[in-house]
Amino acid sequence: MSRFWSDVVHTLTPYVPGEQPKLDNLVKLNTNENPYGPSPKALEAIAGANQDTLRLYPDPNAEALRAAIALAYGIEPRQVFVGNGSDEVLALVFQALLKHGRPLLFPDITYSFYPVYCALFGIDYQAVPLDPAFRIRPEDYRRPNGGIIFPNPNAPTGRWLTLAEIQGLLEANPDSPVVVDEAYVDFGCESACGLIRRFPNLLVVHTLSKGRSLAGLRLGYAMGDAGLIEALDRVKNSFNSYPVDRLAMAGAIAALEDRDHFDRTRRAVMASRGRLVAELKELGFEVLPSMANFIFARHPARGGAELAAGLRRRSIIVRHFPHPRIEAFLRITIGTDAQCRVLVDALKEMLA
Amino acid sequence: MSRFWSDVVHTLTPYVPGEQPKLDNLVKLNTNENPYGPSPKALEAIAGANQDTLRLYPDPNAEALRAAIALAYGIEPRQVFVGNGSDEVLALVFQALLKHGRPLLFPDITYSFYPVYCALFGIDYQAVPLDPAFRIRPEDYRRPNGGIIFPNPNAPTGRWLTLAEIQGLLEANPDSPVVVDEAYVDFGCESACGLIRRFPNLLVVHTLSKGRSLAGLRLGYAMGDAGLIEALDRVKNSFNSYPVDRLAMAGAIAALEDRDHFDRTRRAVMASRGRLVAELKELGFEVLPSMANFIFARHPARGGAELAAGLRRRSIIVRHFPHPRIEAFLRITIGTDAQCRVLVDALKEMLA
Repeated sequence: MSRFWSDVVHTLTPYVPGEQPKLDNLVKLNTNENPYGPSPKALEAIAGANQDTLRLYPDPNAEALRAAIALAYGIEPRQVFVGNGSDEVLALVFQALLKHGRPLLFPDITYSFYPVYCALFGIDYQAVPLDPAFRIRPEDYRRPNGGIIFPNPNAPTGRWLTLAEIQGLLEANPDSPVVVDEAYVDFGCESACGLIRRFPNLLVVHTLSKGRSLAGLRLGYAMGDAGLIEALDRVKNSFNSYPVDRLAMAGAIAALEDRDHFDRTRRAVMASRGRLVAELKELGFEVLPSMANFIFARHPARGGAELAAGLRRRSIIVRHFPHPRIEAFLRITIGTDAQCRVLVDALKEMLA
Repeated sequence: MSRFWSDVVHTLTPYVPGEQPKLDNLVKLNTNENPYGPSPKALEAIAGANQDTLRLYPDPNAEALRAAIALAYGIEPRQVFVGNGSDEVLALVFQALLKHGRPLLFPDITYSFYPVYCALFGIDYQAVPLDPAFRIRPEDYRRPNGGIIFPNPNAPTGRWLTLAEIQGLLEANPDSPVVVDEAYVDFGCESACGLIRRFPNLLVVHTLSKGRSLAGLRLGYAMGDAGLIEALDRVKNSFNSYPVDRLAMAGAIAALEDRDHFDRTRRAVMASRGRLVAELKELGFEVLPSMANFIFARHPARGGAELAAGLRRRSIIVRHFPHPRIEAFLRITIGTDAQCRVLVDALKEMLA
């Protein structure tokens, strides 16, 4: 039926998200979900919005939610854009802000949706190699470009740039939009959003899927100078006026307000991460330093595909990328301590 | 800050949806929402999904929802695509199926998002004039084109094509994708989805915002040959893997299953429409025949803008489009009988 397809469709290699298996009783450590549930206050707020008013459209400008985000991060509502998950926000960012005459730069090992967006919107890009320790080298981004995007911490490595390094990168690229994708920032890394006031070229993208345990709700947002936000609004309002529904809006606002739940659960994840890293190192794994809710680890004696398959046979799912440079690695989401225990025991058995 | 914008952003004139006022006590007849709430079973299903599992991503393929839609319309799940409201579905349709060497055709008076999508995706189009009675003339679409799209019933006129006319249009355009946007089909019009099996170029787009009273939830879908659906999936998976959240999925499935509630509420809307049309005609209005949950009416002695402003002063909001050919008209959503009463009384007073 391809004769009815627009040309671009033929060129696409869509992003493949981590498997969402329908089996129960799996130890699911493959898509970086939070092992703890969302704030009970978010569930309560959703229950409150679950009524006859669902017959009415949501506020297309999501003003209450923008205000809640602005309050949480000490910025203005006009510096906030919200969307149906940070993947949608990123898609609109690529379309609205990253298509220029010069190539977009991002790391060669990073969120694999970036090159997919480039194909969809016809954006020229260059993949900048990570250093041999899988770090982003800011000095590599001092070359002509039409924009820069990277996750901080980076995925799937978990390695991060300091705020000083990000500031240097912004100073070196005053004429380029610089997008810091902070999907995993809530697990120990410092957010760049404090730099928004000083850098009109900085856009910071967040999600409620990781630190706020709301992957099932689809809520992401971007923070930056009002000029950048206006571009996103213009494209969004040319694509879908109402991407954020009434329930997501209510749940997101309550989740952002419940600072206690947020801090308690992310600290639990960080503590589990520390323990898991120590145990994997005892088993001989090399584990990259991580500030994310996942770790990236390889074993000197066993291949990544082999380990992933062995875990799978034991009903434990982790992510393996069959790509150059990283095919030896497993990306393992930090689960509860009980889940980490099951994982470590399985690996012990497999390595024995 | 426009130096950071991608070129396309400068060229956009975003769609402006009907106002979503934050005042209470308004008679809101401006955005074609259903005056009756959604199925109580949908609210129940949402309540059931509102739990800790929101920490997990939804099924990216929305298989359960696709199956429910397929069952409701007697088609296969692979003939169904779902998205975050029919506006998102339409956006992906324009991008995936309607960009070709020859111009896209749609009526000159129609859903005003269509030309906005064309600007966003760089699609060449021709607006085909409605006839003097504001009807789509199928024979006007027998000209070289790269695709055809129209709402049935059309918006904001409410007028419709018969199934035989749509079939003729499909037969005359075997090499073009033909998209029938059935946002308003549930109020007396016949769906074209029975033609899907015979016409691989037919795509039918639906929403749960009107007939199912779930505008606040954001759920739309497309039905057509698996080849057309594959194009939509490819673009969706290059844009946002998870547009439909867990709550929307649960609510939508239950709403589609509750045929009784659906039939009862849409019949109530149709009955109110009949009464409202009769009363407006008594007041001297010309009312176009409508199969939608709105009517399009003009008064020989009063301008549309003047009437809309007068109603607004009386806390009644209707939609007025300051566009050539239709500036005399009001588009009035069918409310409850009580709301229609308030509207008619206000108009009586204004026309006295």
